[in-house]
Amino acid sequence: MTSKARIAVDAMGGDGGLAVMLAGVAHARRRAPGLEFVLVGDEAAIRAGLENHPNLTAASQVVHAPEVVASDEKPSQAIRRARTTSMGIAIDQVKQGHAAAAVSAGNTGALMAMAKVALRTMPGIDRPALAALMPSLGETDTVMLDLGANTECDARNLMQFAVMGAAYARTALDLERPRVALLNIGTEDQKGTDIIRDAANQLRSGAHLPLEFAGFIEGDRISRGEVDVVVCDGFTGNIALKTAEGTARFVADLLKRAFRSSIRSKIGFLISRPATELLRDHLDPNNHNGAVFLGLNGLVVKSHGGANEIGFENAIQLAAKMVRDDLGRRIAQDLGNFEARAA
Amino acid sequence: MTSKARIAVDAMGGDGGLAVMLAGVAHARRRAPGLEFVLVGDEAAIRAGLENHPNLTAASQVVHAPEVVASDEKPSQAIRRARTTSMGIAIDQVKQGHAAAAVSAGNTGALMAMAKVALRTMPGIDRPALAALMPSLGETDTVMLDLGANTECDARNLMQFAVMGAAYARTALDLERPRVALLNIGTEDQKGTDIIRDAANQLRSGAHLPLEFAGFIEGDRISRGEVDVVVCDGFTGNIALKTAEGTARFVADLLKRAFRSSIRSKIGFLISRPATELLRDHLDPNNHNGAVFLGLNGLVVKSHGGANEIGFENAIQLAAKMVRDDLGRRIAQDLGNFEARAA
Repeated sequence: MTSKARIAVDAMGGDGGLAVMLAGVAHARRRAPGLEFVLVGDEAAIRAGLENHPNLTAASQVVHAPEVVASDEKPSQAIRRARTTSMGIAIDQVKQGHAAAAVSAGNTGALMAMAKVALRTMPGIDRPALAALMPSLGETDTVMLDLGANTECDARNLMQFAVMGAAYARTALDLERPRVALLNIGTEDQKGTDIIRDAANQLRSGAHLPLEFAGFIEGDRISRGEVDVVVCDGFTGNIALKTAEGTARFVADLLKRAFRSSIRSKIGFLISRPATELLRDHLDPNNHNGAVFLGLNGLVVKSHGGANEIGFENAIQLAAKMVRDDLGRRIAQDLGNFEARAA
Repeated sequence: MTSKARIAVDAMGGDGGLAVMLAGVAHARRRAPGLEFVLVGDEAAIRAGLENHPNLTAASQVVHAPEVVASDEKPSQAIRRARTTSMGIAIDQVKQGHAAAAVSAGNTGALMAMAKVALRTMPGIDRPALAALMPSLGETDTVMLDLGANTECDARNLMQFAVMGAAYARTALDLERPRVALLNIGTEDQKGTDIIRDAANQLRSGAHLPLEFAGFIEGDRISRGEVDVVVCDGFTGNIALKTAEGTARFVADLLKRAFRSSIRSKIGFLISRPATELLRDHLDPNNHNGAVFLGLNGLVVKSHGGANEIGFENAIQLAAKMVRDDLGRRIAQDLGNFEARAA
């Protein structure tokens, strides 16, 4: 069962470079000494980097990859380099059963495309989805999916995303029965598109699922902590996620500008700094790191490109947790139950 | 030409009640003494309220409406009461040519439905759109449309929204050649749906339009002030607008929580209060009030339901500005030019 605790790392993927990746892996290993790693990338550079992390040396295998996927590379182009790039080889480690999950901080589109081609969708799942954790006012983060894997979706896709998102929330957020809602432009039954209303009907019939279907949710309630999983098509999810990120940065920028507007405000800022640091900490993407491709025959975690070592550690730990909970099996089981009853 | 400066006001629509509406109207009149009003609602109550605003009495005509559209009333139901409700009668004032614009702070869905039925879309426009002003880091607000009038749109709809939004930005934001972008999940040409790519192609061919087509914009750039008009279908726009509102409130809530977390932070908060007030002011919906239905044979402005008297004054002034600039004619002209050249 060692392969279950072995994680393949695309060591070349992040904006911060190899040193940040290795430091993140070393942190994760310190927290979970059972973990093993396959570090994929420039072998000489990785071996040199490992000298700073003696705790990793025995726990890691290094696999050389001569190339790296560029951050602006088109997915269609990256796929052709699956056998030579650190990203492609890390995913192949999962496909070959050498590792139980792959983690990369590289190009999201390329990672999605490569993972889909190499690992294929699970039996019974029509389309994989990208799920991420968003900060909320509640006790845990909120899971949101799909965030861009599928520009257009049908009702069955959305229903499957709900089931997968709930399984993910049970693992990532330690919830027993996550509250799941469909993102819509109103909460009344007749709101939205036919596709969304149809998905809602399918989910209403799933009372035996390990989730609580909470109906529709509007964009202004996503971060209130009232539901645990927000489901939508990849176009809407990408717009909502990026609008939320942009607005949080916008408000922070306005706040900075305001604090700089007078000497009095500057002084107040210095005094209340612990408060603004608390805010920054709550919103720091590193503390909500790790988006996951759900629905593939194998686990693939996407770290923020700009993650620091703490962020990358979080992404690795998330991967380890999903391996431990056997997330793939959970999803297959939930979906099987749902469809057996529906039939 | 007196009808051009006369605005019909649904005096019963706002959450703040008649007193707030009349105070807002009185403020607007003080700023623009040429304005006249048709105040629609409970006649006795309006006449009693006018006693507090002697500057309005001579400038206002009161039209009695026995009923009010409820805030949770279904649009299909409200339409049937168009002849007896303050909202329906205010719109009818525009239809009959007694007023040049109608302003309401009531139920948005009902207002859209009633306005569409009563005023009909302009020749050449397939669908009207709801446009609003969003705060930004730029020198002016950003116009965003559609925000919910059309759940699904085709490429021609989006192209027309771009033309209407640009005409609106020229009036509302005093811009000569607004920068217009389509909201999408990436900025590369191949991103998004066929509909969005097709709309982009149509807009690229419109170099003679009084707008600068800036291609695609992602959700995280909406509030950066890099473009003046953001165009999308009503589903996406509603999700983006509400997600932005919700995130701004979320960050403000976190900030409040953080400021309360220690005595030191509380003191810092008190000292830097001018800064946080500046922030609040920048984000206050009252300072960005007035959504507009574009593309109808008549101007209809939707005020936030919770607007205070300053907010309502802003909505009235926006209506007056659009009347003055003859926004409807501008839109017809721009669209006519565009289609003549395209043909």
